[in-house]
Amino acid sequence: MTPAGAPAFRAALDGLELVDHPVQLRLRSRDFYWYSPILKRELDGKAADLIIVPHTIDEVVRVAAACARYSVPLVVRGGATGNYGQMVPLQGGVLLDMAKLDRTLWIERDRGRFEAGVRLGDADQQCQRTGWELRMFPSTRRQATVGGYVCGGAAGVGSIRYGQLRDAGSVLGMKVVTCEPTPRVIELRGAEIGKALHAYGTTCIVVEVELALAPAYPWVEMVAAFEDFAAAAQFAQALAEADGIFLKLDSLMAWPLPRYFRGLEAALPEGKHVVMIMVAVANVAAVQSLVRERGGTVTLERRYAEGDGAPPLYEYTWNHTTLQWLKQDRGITYLQCLFPHDRVIESVREMWAMFPDEVLPHTEFIRFGGRVTCSALPIVRYTTEERLNEIIALHESHGVFIANPHVYTLEDGTRHKSTGADQLGMKAEADPYGLLNPGKMRTYKPVRS
Amino acid sequence: MTPAGAPAFRAALDGLELVDHPVQLRLRSRDFYWYSPILKRELDGKAADLIIVPHTIDEVVRVAAACARYSVPLVVRGGATGNYGQMVPLQGGVLLDMAKLDRTLWIERDRGRFEAGVRLGDADQQCQRTGWELRMFPSTRRQATVGGYVCGGAAGVGSIRYGQLRDAGSVLGMKVVTCEPTPRVIELRGAEIGKALHAYGTTCIVVEVELALAPAYPWVEMVAAFEDFAAAAQFAQALAEADGIFLKLDSLMAWPLPRYFRGLEAALPEGKHVVMIMVAVANVAAVQSLVRERGGTVTLERRYAEGDGAPPLYEYTWNHTTLQWLKQDRGITYLQCLFPHDRVIESVREMWAMFPDEVLPHTEFIRFGGRVTCSALPIVRYTTEERLNEIIALHESHGVFIANPHVYTLEDGTRHKSTGADQLGMKAEADPYGLLNPGKMRTYKPVRS
Repeated sequence: MTPAGAPAFRAALDGLELVDHPVQLRLRSRDFYWYSPILKRELDGKAADLIIVPHTIDEVVRVAAACARYSVPLVVRGGATGNYGQMVPLQGGVLLDMAKLDRTLWIERDRGRFEAGVRLGDADQQCQRTGWELRMFPSTRRQATVGGYVCGGAAGVGSIRYGQLRDAGSVLGMKVVTCEPTPRVIELRGAEIGKALHAYGTTCIVVEVELALAPAYPWVEMVAAFEDFAAAAQFAQALAEADGIFLKLDSLMAWPLPRYFRGLEAALPEGKHVVMIMVAVANVAAVQSLVRERGGTVTLERRYAEGDGAPPLYEYTWNHTTLQWLKQDRGITYLQCLFPHDRVIESVREMWAMFPDEVLPHTEFIRFGGRVTCSALPIVRYTTEERLNEIIALHESHGVFIANPHVYTLEDGTRHKSTGADQLGMKAEADPYGLLNPGKMRTYKPVRS
Repeated sequence: MTPAGAPAFRAALDGLELVDHPVQLRLRSRDFYWYSPILKRELDGKAADLIIVPHTIDEVVRVAAACARYSVPLVVRGGATGNYGQMVPLQGGVLLDMAKLDRTLWIERDRGRFEAGVRLGDADQQCQRTGWELRMFPSTRRQATVGGYVCGGAAGVGSIRYGQLRDAGSVLGMKVVTCEPTPRVIELRGAEIGKALHAYGTTCIVVEVELALAPAYPWVEMVAAFEDFAAAAQFAQALAEADGIFLKLDSLMAWPLPRYFRGLEAALPEGKHVVMIMVAVANVAAVQSLVRERGGTVTLERRYAEGDGAPPLYEYTWNHTTLQWLKQDRGITYLQCLFPHDRVIESVREMWAMFPDEVLPHTEFIRFGGRVTCSALPIVRYTTEERLNEIIALHESHGVFIANPHVYTLEDGTRHKSTGADQLGMKAEADPYGLLNPGKMRTYKPVRS
């Protein structure tokens, strides 16, 4: 019998919403790790022994106490839209499904506070009713949760203006629960949020998140198409650097990526490289001029609105780009790169020239450390793990940072292959038995057992 | 008799609002050129022969036609807050005072259209009632006009997020009137606005301006004080580069500048270098943390609101910094510098070390071409014109661009000492007799006479 099945443990959970049907356990223990053939091999079949669906923070505290007392692993599930297996339980145990912790606590001008299980799309719409909106969201906005985003995400649609989640001022606070026999409920503010941010729930259980908001702009979706890739890339960069043009999205995709984008065919001429844009209404004309100046053609221009049938443009960008291709052809995977800010375009072109039919450019322009640069998620035609590692090594040796999406540990997925001292310290303090998402923070050794 | 006094000319102006009292002519022909001892010497005593106050665009057309027919110079006056003598008539003639062309035509979400004579403060307040605001304004917001700003200004409070007026997407359109016997009324859109932008009214008469707006944030004014100048400068730069902190103002002033700032004494400790900040409410805590981290102290934190008695913080920044000192001591003047973006702080400190008690640092962090850099308006203790020119030459030889505020021609005030081909072309077309603000565009030779 697994620890999660022990009668004393079950007794401690009396009255909570539990799910232990095998199909549910298998289905809800998965995220989108299967974009990576390596992670697919390593994570397929991993599953929790028991799903618990808390409705209140008190219930989260009860679960954390029970897990600490009975040595049961505890993994937190948001929308399960990650690509690094962030929420896949490696050692079984409890999957804490946050779907019912979904209250918006308050929205007050440029700030909003949400329970962890609020879907980003819902949070965004609630903010928009007050004239504000989320500063950034992943392309999985409609499924992903606020808690999942801050625990497993980094940036997204909006990062071209607001940088990263980890930038001071993006995430204002978090309420977290420790995993101890008598759990503590702690409010992390300001720089302290680093203890839990992008930690895959290994250091504590995030139950509430306070975000800085952006004013809600009337956005327009645009696609610009170019004959020449260099022209498209230079346009995308010039656009990103145009301080007077208020953007939310600036994504560059080389042909043949657009061939795989269903539902957007009319905007994607055969053989053309495209830039996908979300821009404030006032600046549409400025974008049109810049497109013309750079020899491109505007092939789509429409008001951004959710839920009118057609998928929003952002569902072709960020890691949805990879998904669009995977829907047609499972023979590919992807990488996650950060190009050197002082030679972004040169570097993108250099890498493409090195792997002309094997690594196909897809970049997302963002602000990073006060500068415009590219986060890139190129499509890789997959052959072997050995070749994939070779491609990664060749990128790194040419000055391109890789956040490897073919590993599931926190450390290996970063540029630095390490975990911050604040996260190691928080884990020692808040998860002394090492029960939170065990196996994901590989440099951590439990202080007690 | 001057041409402006000729009876036929006067007859052509029948029914218009005219002012020709000598005191009014002298007073209204001046701007703030007197910050420069050189310009003071050169421009003192220059005055128009006649002031005309149009109430409609049709009246502007009548004045332009009369000036073209009777060869009368025509200079346009907005709020007269420039520092380069932009609106000082060098050759007499008509001063077209736009004060009564002051209608806000429409505000529609992120765009607004204004007659040229609308004061920026009024325009901003009208926008704010709709949830939007001006993207940027000069420190003379309360006096300056929309038309004067786009014809004589460049950047301002807000440029840390939105760049320059000349950036594509800032100024969306302009209606202009040509100076011909039968004047044309032309709408300039997009890149065409370069024909009139920052041309001191030499190429045409701007009568309407359409601006991109920014969402109205709840702003907080803050002052941070530092013992050490390098620490203050590095803080100001780190703040400017913090993508998650939404700023409107980031101004660095070395001691002893703050000694001269009346009305803000409690926030300006003796001997301390200060950074003046306008930041979104949500990000106040992030600024506080950054100040602490960098060894500074927050000495002021208050909600930004106009008209509550205390002058707004921005009236100590940009060229109001110089004005604050001049109110106490007329022995100084200033420069206008752009520091190299890749070594902003080093360059600022290098220049201060070169002129320790003579050129005192005051920088305004801005976005310029997609990057964070500094526009600077250092205080200069004035001795002689020769020494001033030597200081300018030494800045330029150390890689610091100077937009010389001690000259009154368009060309000499720029970094490039030239006028754009589009402005020269527009002037040839729209002012064939060279009557608009004559003497300011020195490279222009009239095509007809």
